[in-house]
Amino acid sequence: MKNFEFYCPTRVIFGKNTESQVGTETKKYGKKILLHYGGGSIKRTGLYDRVIKSLRQEGIEVIELGGVMPNPRLGLVREGIDTCRGKNIDFILVVGGGSTVDSGKAIAAGTPYKGDVWDFFSNGAPEIETAIPLGVVLTIPAAGSEVSPDMVVTNEEGWLKRPAGGDPIRSRFSIMNPELTFTLSAHQTVIGISDILAHIYERYFSQVSNTELVDRLAEATMKTVINNTRLILKDLRDYDARAEIMWAGSIAHNNLLATGKEGDWGSHNIEHELSAIYDIPHGEGLAIVFPAWMKYVYRENKAKFVQFAERVWNIDGDSKDEESIILEGIARMEEYYKEIGLPVRLSDIDIGEDRFAEMAEKCVGDSTTGVFKKLDKDDVFEIYKLAL
Amino acid sequence: MKNFEFYCPTRVIFGKNTESQVGTETKKYGKKILLHYGGGSIKRTGLYDRVIKSLRQEGIEVIELGGVMPNPRLGLVREGIDTCRGKNIDFILVVGGGSTVDSGKAIAAGTPYKGDVWDFFSNGAPEIETAIPLGVVLTIPAAGSEVSPDMVVTNEEGWLKRPAGGDPIRSRFSIMNPELTFTLSAHQTVIGISDILAHIYERYFSQVSNTELVDRLAEATMKTVINNTRLILKDLRDYDARAEIMWAGSIAHNNLLATGKEGDWGSHNIEHELSAIYDIPHGEGLAIVFPAWMKYVYRENKAKFVQFAERVWNIDGDSKDEESIILEGIARMEEYYKEIGLPVRLSDIDIGEDRFAEMAEKCVGDSTTGVFKKLDKDDVFEIYKLAL
Repeated sequence: MKNFEFYCPTRVIFGKNTESQVGTETKKYGKKILLHYGGGSIKRTGLYDRVIKSLRQEGIEVIELGGVMPNPRLGLVREGIDTCRGKNIDFILVVGGGSTVDSGKAIAAGTPYKGDVWDFFSNGAPEIETAIPLGVVLTIPAAGSEVSPDMVVTNEEGWLKRPAGGDPIRSRFSIMNPELTFTLSAHQTVIGISDILAHIYERYFSQVSNTELVDRLAEATMKTVINNTRLILKDLRDYDARAEIMWAGSIAHNNLLATGKEGDWGSHNIEHELSAIYDIPHGEGLAIVFPAWMKYVYRENKAKFVQFAERVWNIDGDSKDEESIILEGIARMEEYYKEIGLPVRLSDIDIGEDRFAEMAEKCVGDSTTGVFKKLDKDDVFEIYKLAL
Repeated sequence: MKNFEFYCPTRVIFGKNTESQVGTETKKYGKKILLHYGGGSIKRTGLYDRVIKSLRQEGIEVIELGGVMPNPRLGLVREGIDTCRGKNIDFILVVGGGSTVDSGKAIAAGTPYKGDVWDFFSNGAPEIETAIPLGVVLTIPAAGSEVSPDMVVTNEEGWLKRPAGGDPIRSRFSIMNPELTFTLSAHQTVIGISDILAHIYERYFSQVSNTELVDRLAEATMKTVINNTRLILKDLRDYDARAEIMWAGSIAHNNLLATGKEGDWGSHNIEHELSAIYDIPHGEGLAIVFPAWMKYVYRENKAKFVQFAERVWNIDGDSKDEESIILEGIARMEEYYKEIGLPVRLSDIDIGEDRFAEMAEKCVGDSTTGVFKKLDKDDVFEIYKLAL
């Protein structure tokens, strides 16, 4: 086990009707707030009205900024910063999924900052020393941003998608009502599931030894996600299954499952080039990249992959060799992804090999990505090929 | 799953040599501190010198108050409060185990409070609205107080042992170096283990249904504790096993494993009367009470006990009836406790049945304890009898 710090101060308020507490929670931090959201879905579902009612009951003044898109844009972030400065906003309330949370975090960091907010996402980025306090009403379990110190923003000039982070942008509270996820379609649900599992894989596949507790916690979370996704696909309004997935989405990304380990994150980088060029959902890209990555790297630590096959995918390893157990585990994961409606090959979504070299070059250049196995340009190219 | 709040803002700083960071962490909160500790062990091990050196390097002024005993006493708490008020102390640094942390928490709450600190532990207790900030260097994994908002203090007048709690007394940081636990004897280690497992059982055995994620996380933690205790008993200086236990001790009690559930805590109350009268270690009492409690209550939710037997104690349930699986699970738990050197019957520690009625009366009077099954005086009496 490696030395670590674990810090996760966000207050999670979880369960039915919890959005009715948003007024009293918000009032602890601010009186004049920016209400930040995405498209119109929160208005169609009635969530917007319930949030506004709860805020009004506490006498909170609300300035609105909607229109966040998936892969949140710097332009809207800058608009939010101008609004917050011009109107002396003292709190940002985000109602939405990961993209909206990230957009809100960028506004929170950028408002008190003297320079331009993109500095935080650029080479030689300054530390985020302060931010307007922020709270979240979560509507999509996937990104985990509601409990993380991280954000990803896309700069329309050059379409650069970049991460940044720091403790000041952590949400003060995250209100999570699983009922708010009933309106997510099967497809929206499973691309979130793919993201949640990917967040666990990135931390689980570590070369650090003696991490029994955290490995077992990760396996517990993966098994729960696997089981409850099946239940949701039978009934999109299954409260208990939606609740398991929503809480698992936060556990997958609050860094508990990274304690004492060293995350990989190579597959996220490899996927990133796919979704940047082909504009596919991140979760679809991850469901395609991970099987290929696993097949390419498992020889670096077979024991770990045997453990994954046996404990997560229930492969009975008794009379088999390591190699068979591992490959059966990966195959069962692929079968599961297909069963729940995720693509597992680039050909499933009509992507061919013509731009592999370009993507591999953009992904690592002359450097490498990943930790479990450090992957150079040629490795990344081979992984794209395995994903065909 | 029930609605819940999860809040655990303590920064955990975990690993080798992390006590050398105590000066820089402390300086974030205070310049003139109360250093609170127990007996002389931290001086014998050299930890005291290392802590003092790190504090001096940051120019922190240190006022000392040692002498905390197991079951921390109100008298010393009051002395600490007088010192903090008289010397304008702005931070409390605890170096020790759960009793020392609890004593420090009581001083932290009592110092800014206008009334008497015992008010917080009395009927009709006021809310703890503020406290001096507090930090911890942990030396014993067991109580989990380093990540909880709770404390237990004993009033020498009447020997009343009472709990209290609130967010303001949470530790700002908890420094946890597993090497600091190398000097714990096998016996000291396993009574801590019993406490850690008990904290998990109290949350695990809940009548709330649909708690798959949290059940699995609890099972992961129990299995890790069971495995690594065996390793420690082979080598008290096994760093990795000590690390697993130390982190598991915090996970067992930071309330993650209670999210969406309803804890029982009846066995803690039943044990409390034992250790109050016979002055046995809390961990020994819990190892005796839990098997008896389980045998008395399992019929209230057999499915839960089957799950416990199969997933935690590896009972192969295929061709057996529920009852056999459950009783085999409890028997295997008892065997394990005996193997690691814990008593599992009152007769193992020479306690007879002569004061059962008195203890049952003190435990519940005309009320009940526990939630999994509400236990009245007669039930508690029967559980003591099963523990003989």
